[in-house]
Amino acid sequence: MSRDSRHAADDLAELSDRLLTMAGLAEERLRLALRGLVERDEAVLAAVIAGDSSINNLQMEIDDRCFKHIALFQPVAVDLRTVVSTLKINADLERIGDLAVNVAELAQRYSQHRPVKPLIDLPRMADLAMRMLRDAIEAFIKRDVNAAQKVLRDDDWLDGLKEQIFRELLTFMLGSPQTIEPAIDLILISRHLERIGDHATNIAEDVIFVVDGRDVRHRVTLNAPVERRRPLQTPPV
Amino acid sequence: MSRDSRHAADDLAELSDRLLTMAGLAEERLRLALRGLVERDEAVLAAVIAGDSSINNLQMEIDDRCFKHIALFQPVAVDLRTVVSTLKINADLERIGDLAVNVAELAQRYSQHRPVKPLIDLPRMADLAMRMLRDAIEAFIKRDVNAAQKVLRDDDWLDGLKEQIFRELLTFMLGSPQTIEPAIDLILISRHLERIGDHATNIAEDVIFVVDGRDVRHRVTLNAPVERRRPLQTPPV
Repeated sequence: MSRDSRHAADDLAELSDRLLTMAGLAEERLRLALRGLVERDEAVLAAVIAGDSSINNLQMEIDDRCFKHIALFQPVAVDLRTVVSTLKINADLERIGDLAVNVAELAQRYSQHRPVKPLIDLPRMADLAMRMLRDAIEAFIKRDVNAAQKVLRDDDWLDGLKEQIFRELLTFMLGSPQTIEPAIDLILISRHLERIGDHATNIAEDVIFVVDGRDVRHRVTLNAPVERRRPLQTPPV
Repeated sequence: MSRDSRHAADDLAELSDRLLTMAGLAEERLRLALRGLVERDEAVLAAVIAGDSSINNLQMEIDDRCFKHIALFQPVAVDLRTVVSTLKINADLERIGDLAVNVAELAQRYSQHRPVKPLIDLPRMADLAMRMLRDAIEAFIKRDVNAAQKVLRDDDWLDGLKEQIFRELLTFMLGSPQTIEPAIDLILISRHLERIGDHATNIAEDVIFVVDGRDVRHRVTLNAPVERRRPLQTPPV
């Protein structure tokens, strides 16, 4: 390994490290939003909504490092795919931070009503989404395709939970009109959690792309919607 | 201009062209989904949900071209930012295609109920979202920062429409429980349209990044949520 390629590998390792920190910050903000929702804690929700400059700064730092890495080391093949995927994942993590704000805003509005029901399934959904996120990032850093595929499978569970929450809340709304407004907030929160699962899924797909150079976004499988899947292709680089 | 840099410029121009086609396909799918919703046309909705391999194939072709461009021409500065932004925009356009499917699925469920009301504001919201998308892509291709900034401003209008739709549907639901289920579908559709506006906004932010090398995602302005804005920074490359 030449001095240059060692330097490039070090730079990539540092980049992974920063991405892991970014994922931790995004997850922490979602955790706070859920705590604010469940405990009806106005101060916690206000803090999430006020934003956190550390996640914004880190996002820009990571983007910056990726561009510098490409310009400096001119990576190809798996290294180029890694850097470009890092840029994409960084964007996914920023959106998760934004979604945490959206959850906190809905939770704030929800808190102005009497609770519709004890919140059991929404926190379960959030826990699953956060685990998917952690697993996807870890799979990316370890370049572990099996772990990435598990994240894709977990997404079906998340979907199931979302449907269950929807059906249950609908029953409440049909039974008593005063629950309509707050129940809609809970439904919208469940949709935001679903989207966090989608971002984790994006990251997992990036892992498979980085490692195998194959694009699994549109592959055809029996259990998956046709739209997102297609036959395997030759590597892009 | 050397032969190599002319070749690189030609390759970038072709890439722009393909991206424009991709945007057209994404917009067409959303337009069909809305038509299926408004006209309660099951066949149109089924066609949107069944998916369209041309948009998937084009997405992968564009990704592929971007990677090859970086590996072959090793672009720096504005050209590197253009290629990486193309990758990001390509992902945004794919998500818009997915959102069109989500809209069609909700429209299918909605069609099983009696109409809640004549649909006026949802098509208006969709028109605005599609115009934002077209404007953002055109701004990207022309590297027109002013046009990109207009897209960012339009997003506030989209938000206003979404709130108005929500309030109106809530009134229906509170008045007659049999509208609850279909009205929720319309609310969820409005949220998907909001997300299409978010993707257009992402693209507009990429334009400013490509042209100025400045990251406007977290800039601070008076009329905008704190979370997405921050002071200007030095260019990343």
